[in-house]
Amino acid sequence: MSHSKLGVVGAGQLARMMHQAAIALAIELDVLAVSADEPAPLAGVPPRFGEATDPEALRRFSASHDVVTFDHEVVDLETALALEAEGRVLRPSAAALGVVADKSVMRRTLHDAGLPGPDFVIANDEGEVTAALGRWPQAVLKLTRGGYDGRGVFVVRSSDEAMAIAGPVFAGGGRFVIEPLLPLDAEMAVIVARRPGGESVVYDPVTTIQVDGMCSEVIAPAQVSAQHHAAATDLVARIADELDVVGLLAVELFLVGDEITINELAVRPHNTGHHTIDACVTSQFENHLRAVLDLPLGDPSLTTAHAVMVNVVGGEALRDPRDLLADALALDPGARVHLYAKEPRPGRKVGHVTICDDDLERARRRAWAVTTALDTPKEPS
Amino acid sequence: MSHSKLGVVGAGQLARMMHQAAIALAIELDVLAVSADEPAPLAGVPPRFGEATDPEALRRFSASHDVVTFDHEVVDLETALALEAEGRVLRPSAAALGVVADKSVMRRTLHDAGLPGPDFVIANDEGEVTAALGRWPQAVLKLTRGGYDGRGVFVVRSSDEAMAIAGPVFAGGGRFVIEPLLPLDAEMAVIVARRPGGESVVYDPVTTIQVDGMCSEVIAPAQVSAQHHAAATDLVARIADELDVVGLLAVELFLVGDEITINELAVRPHNTGHHTIDACVTSQFENHLRAVLDLPLGDPSLTTAHAVMVNVVGGEALRDPRDLLADALALDPGARVHLYAKEPRPGRKVGHVTICDDDLERARRRAWAVTTALDTPKEPS
Repeated sequence: MSHSKLGVVGAGQLARMMHQAAIALAIELDVLAVSADEPAPLAGVPPRFGEATDPEALRRFSASHDVVTFDHEVVDLETALALEAEGRVLRPSAAALGVVADKSVMRRTLHDAGLPGPDFVIANDEGEVTAALGRWPQAVLKLTRGGYDGRGVFVVRSSDEAMAIAGPVFAGGGRFVIEPLLPLDAEMAVIVARRPGGESVVYDPVTTIQVDGMCSEVIAPAQVSAQHHAAATDLVARIADELDVVGLLAVELFLVGDEITINELAVRPHNTGHHTIDACVTSQFENHLRAVLDLPLGDPSLTTAHAVMVNVVGGEALRDPRDLLADALALDPGARVHLYAKEPRPGRKVGHVTICDDDLERARRRAWAVTTALDTPKEPS
Repeated sequence: MSHSKLGVVGAGQLARMMHQAAIALAIELDVLAVSADEPAPLAGVPPRFGEATDPEALRRFSASHDVVTFDHEVVDLETALALEAEGRVLRPSAAALGVVADKSVMRRTLHDAGLPGPDFVIANDEGEVTAALGRWPQAVLKLTRGGYDGRGVFVVRSSDEAMAIAGPVFAGGGRFVIEPLLPLDAEMAVIVARRPGGESVVYDPVTTIQVDGMCSEVIAPAQVSAQHHAAATDLVARIADELDVVGLLAVELFLVGDEITINELAVRPHNTGHHTIDACVTSQFENHLRAVLDLPLGDPSLTTAHAVMVNVVGGEALRDPRDLLADALALDPGARVHLYAKEPRPGRKVGHVTICDDDLERARRRAWAVTTALDTPKEPS
């Protein structure tokens, strides 16, 4: 399968880092891109131009590849299903994409499979919002489609607050999943890589730290008990089997007391696995490629006592981290810096920094120091 | 400097692996290539076409880059010197390239600097060959220019044998360095990365194992005493300063009794440092980029007790390792496989395998097993 023509729908940093892994195995890939200025084409991946939501573009792209995979889930699903019916190979499948692309489908699917999630209602109108807020005075409204990095997710503490958000969304034809706001003890994430035949490997669970709903920091392995570690690992392998995922499945989990609850799913390389490039035997990107090309999977083990990954996010200064690289590298010769060649905008992920260290607190300090230097210029002396 | 336009003369596997490292730091580079089928363009590096030995091609290429570096030394040196005189930035410099491109210059330069090398003579005619073989009945004849991977190096045990080789070379205008055949106790290599201002970091010395003059296996760290380790490290840092190398300097060393002697030099990423991709905090490729762009250098420390790198070399079977990848990966989930997308030919390096392991002998067995699987197809069952 290594000589297969692999196409990646989407050309962002995930496709960029897939390409880095693909070079080692001499796997050739190209991407369905919107612009030549996206992170993957800027790293030398040949772009084919088109929108993943455009049936014709998706059809044309899949026709020229043996296997098609994805760096995001915002895909025209009807076309994806039709292409599979015509014998095209999509990994993950259109069905799996469909589950993760719509949070109402995701919640229903997991619930029907007996997998642990929060209570939820699917709200199509204002009456359903009012009813839900009557039940849970503090709730989370999630757009069923298109949210990411905390966008499309709203924590509300009153019916009025909820209605102010819901009104315009319903007017625009949108819907919500509403869930109670849970008293979280921790957030975790787990990534599993799975081949078409079901063979899988699971990465060590990680602790994730969110700021405004966006992943800010990842600590590997997760700072949880051995029981929680094992339970999270088992749960995520079950989800992968249940959804018959081929490629990667990333699951964000809530820890509430002793209960592990499923928060979100993704069927692609995930921000909570970026540390695996520098801290694991086989990175999530290489295992994604191996899985979708049906190659034997690599060892997901950590090669370090602790790894900390911090995202470089465009801030107020809007300085380009590429211009701050020398200062950042000077701070810490052991830092592994990854930049995505994206123009910085507030709240946009433009890179990440990973530190491997025997001491966790030192790893965290080091990772934050380098990340800060990539966003904030050194004071002129 | 990170926004500088970096050009790499040569488009082989070294440029390919430089590109992998460049992606992480969002460093853009292109290559002076002979063909679009070379390893670097196949990994997405934009090629500019031309021969490094063609003055016009070199001139055109350097005119469009802020910094020019190299993945080999077979460069038109006069043009390189002229370009520097015109203010172009070559890293390493034309002077450093000139030293390594001609073994007679290399030997004389090291000798004049008081650095340890074997006895040698420079033979321009048959009389000088006869004289040398009178002095050393077992000798090594090395073409002064163009040899690599054991090509251009001849071990001879009689004057007759020497003359049979030397005659055609002299007829073609070539010359030799002749050295005594030394009773080697071990071969080692050390790589140093050095910035324009002289800041440098040195990788742990490695043990190298050669077959027919070609590097076959690398063991990191070197299996030598702490004194030899320290002496080798100091020696290589001295050579880098002496030659004012910017970028990487790789030095192959002979260990004869307690004496460390310089065998060969290269001023670029080197086969004896390929393990650094998977076994060190910062790879030789990333540190090469950092050095030539005058960015702070990364930590060269090993992250594993032992790393073993074995080259995948085209053999009799001439099977393409890309077609054998699944079998090879199935053998060992912890193997780090690197393929260069080169058509296999006998004696041609087409990839390498690195194993990190706490146990050295197990690491060696694992590395050889995977490498063998990439060259020899599994028996049909």
